[in-house]
Amino acid sequence: MRKRLAERNSEISSFYVMELLRRAKYLEAQGRDVIHMEIGEPDFPTPPGIIDAGIKHLRTGEVKYTAAAGLPELRKKIAAFYQQRYGVNVDDRRIFVTPGASGAFLLALGVSLNPDEELLMADPCYPCNSNFATLLGGKPRTIAVDADNHYQLTAKQIEAHWTPHTKGVLVASPSNPTGTLIKPEELKKIIYTTNSLGGCFYSDEIYHGLVYGTQANTALAFSDDVFVINSFSKYFGMTGWRIGWLVVPDEFIDATEKLAQNIYIATSTQSQYAALAAFDDSTLAELEYRRAKFAERRDFLYDKLLNLGFKIPIKPEGAFYIYADCSPFSNDSFQFALDFLETEAVALTPGKDFGAHNSRQMLRFAYTTSIANMTIAIQRLERFINR
Amino acid sequence: MRKRLAERNSEISSFYVMELLRRAKYLEAQGRDVIHMEIGEPDFPTPPGIIDAGIKHLRTGEVKYTAAAGLPELRKKIAAFYQQRYGVNVDDRRIFVTPGASGAFLLALGVSLNPDEELLMADPCYPCNSNFATLLGGKPRTIAVDADNHYQLTAKQIEAHWTPHTKGVLVASPSNPTGTLIKPEELKKIIYTTNSLGGCFYSDEIYHGLVYGTQANTALAFSDDVFVINSFSKYFGMTGWRIGWLVVPDEFIDATEKLAQNIYIATSTQSQYAALAAFDDSTLAELEYRRAKFAERRDFLYDKLLNLGFKIPIKPEGAFYIYADCSPFSNDSFQFALDFLETEAVALTPGKDFGAHNSRQMLRFAYTTSIANMTIAIQRLERFINR
Repeated sequence: MRKRLAERNSEISSFYVMELLRRAKYLEAQGRDVIHMEIGEPDFPTPPGIIDAGIKHLRTGEVKYTAAAGLPELRKKIAAFYQQRYGVNVDDRRIFVTPGASGAFLLALGVSLNPDEELLMADPCYPCNSNFATLLGGKPRTIAVDADNHYQLTAKQIEAHWTPHTKGVLVASPSNPTGTLIKPEELKKIIYTTNSLGGCFYSDEIYHGLVYGTQANTALAFSDDVFVINSFSKYFGMTGWRIGWLVVPDEFIDATEKLAQNIYIATSTQSQYAALAAFDDSTLAELEYRRAKFAERRDFLYDKLLNLGFKIPIKPEGAFYIYADCSPFSNDSFQFALDFLETEAVALTPGKDFGAHNSRQMLRFAYTTSIANMTIAIQRLERFINR
Repeated sequence: MRKRLAERNSEISSFYVMELLRRAKYLEAQGRDVIHMEIGEPDFPTPPGIIDAGIKHLRTGEVKYTAAAGLPELRKKIAAFYQQRYGVNVDDRRIFVTPGASGAFLLALGVSLNPDEELLMADPCYPCNSNFATLLGGKPRTIAVDADNHYQLTAKQIEAHWTPHTKGVLVASPSNPTGTLIKPEELKKIIYTTNSLGGCFYSDEIYHGLVYGTQANTALAFSDDVFVINSFSKYFGMTGWRIGWLVVPDEFIDATEKLAQNIYIATSTQSQYAALAAFDDSTLAELEYRRAKFAERRDFLYDKLLNLGFKIPIKPEGAFYIYADCSPFSNDSFQFALDFLETEAVALTPGKDFGAHNSRQMLRFAYTTSIANMTIAIQRLERFINR
């Protein structure tokens, strides 16, 4: 009998953290008090203004399909947000509301990436991003990046790795797992380089808004010829609503609309109505308060980890992650995470979920939990490394 | 400069009905009273019990990611529904909650269909289904079907069209656009034939529940070795919520879970909590009342269209569509639809949105509007064909 599983299944990597999650659930069922520092989701609830807008829409009962590109007023609000926050003009016809950043990635690569074309991206990076390319028959090509370049691709690297099969470049700033940003000069340069080579530029900006002590730059500030993937999940606190957006270059508008109609019909209607309240002053004020909280947590965790002897060659400026080198304590960060969970009931994400480059010595700590919880976690960590 | 649009864009067909929709919107903006009989969406609001459950969850503010496969209690309820409605046991580990049937199709084909493998399906059929295969590099192969086989594939046709490149067979019963069902004996036979040939069987059951005067059979009644795509959109009245489900054969469970984690993380949380109320007795009673209404509408529209001289060789038993032959009035159903809209402000879907086989003489009438509205539409239609 012929194999029926598609071949791509073996090319799509599993998340090692799932093994930790299963074990964490088991330990919790046993009564252990597990502290979760593996979770890429804000612990804050959805802001009340957004919740209220969602409820208000549900009360109408008219939860019908919207246009595939999304509610026109939401697309306009997103365009206005680009103007207000970045001083950048974006034609709202280029903006597509999507089922999370996931939907945005599928659309962006669906309209542009052919089978066997290569997509350049950093190692480490968020693994789902490369798996969208794999799903479509494309070839993710990761390029090792290090702290001296903020764990981000450089124009030089892009030029050096470009081949006739390269379709484009995907960057994420702030990055998951490293929390580091691309400097504006470098961002400008790598967009220019990619476009000069005839390629497509994809900018994952889902952690925009969660930036501390500096500003994130949108790729749209430097070129209209970019794909920008963003989301209401992280900064706006709407993970479970599954809503994000995609900005496409002009030439891709028609194809994107057609593909959206085919692959998801439309984004959840109540999520779209709820998101209309995401840009209200009261909501933004709440989000800025939360951003300040995340900044405190970052400082707390960064200092504590350094004090314990972890190596963090560059202080992260965004997202809610610290990517720390645990080589002083272990040469296998996955085993370290498993043992730490078992002994001390704290869950972390092993580096090898994010790539191959030095990943066996890296651990991702998410500060998506309170300083009170992290204080206990750090005590447990100290006991664990001195066991 | 190299072409940057992916090649698959040219293989994915546009919906001709979109041109009608744009024109209908324009006419409405001009003050014309357009009657919409092109829409594949129930006109009923979401049942109140489902709305209340959604609101109740939103009030918690905790709209967080769920597990990729969906809420365990929802998967259990879907399994219980198979037991209750069809008398069929389905292990809930095989059930994945998905972002609409769209998400279910992407998952089902994503785990099983390799590039260049063929997927057999009926012509006419719902075009998005074949476009999922195209997205993944697969080759949809449509087989012309006619009223004498209920517009459905037969085991004989499947055998005759099978090649070494064929991966599987997709059927939809009730069908969109024809509203016809596969008889249980034939369904059993085509599943057996497909599995004997080593292929995958995909059963689109999204119009189950909307069946009049007979029963729809789930493919799961005949084999565990099938993919079943279903949805809360049509029967349960939850289109805008974007929630459906997929049942997979045992051997695909792990791959499906991994792919779901990667391509959509999870289905909208509030939609999942709302769907928990979809199987409540009070909701099901409301849905059965609506089903009776749809049955009345079908009978009304069927009789009127026959009286006007349209040919409907087989009375549809499900969904909310009548696929009618307009060759007595026109040899170009698309032009007929455009002219009818312009002259009489009634929107229909042209046959060529559903395939090539005889489609230029076919029109899809959706009875997703009241008998009062359809009475006016029929008057307009009578005037139009006698103009």
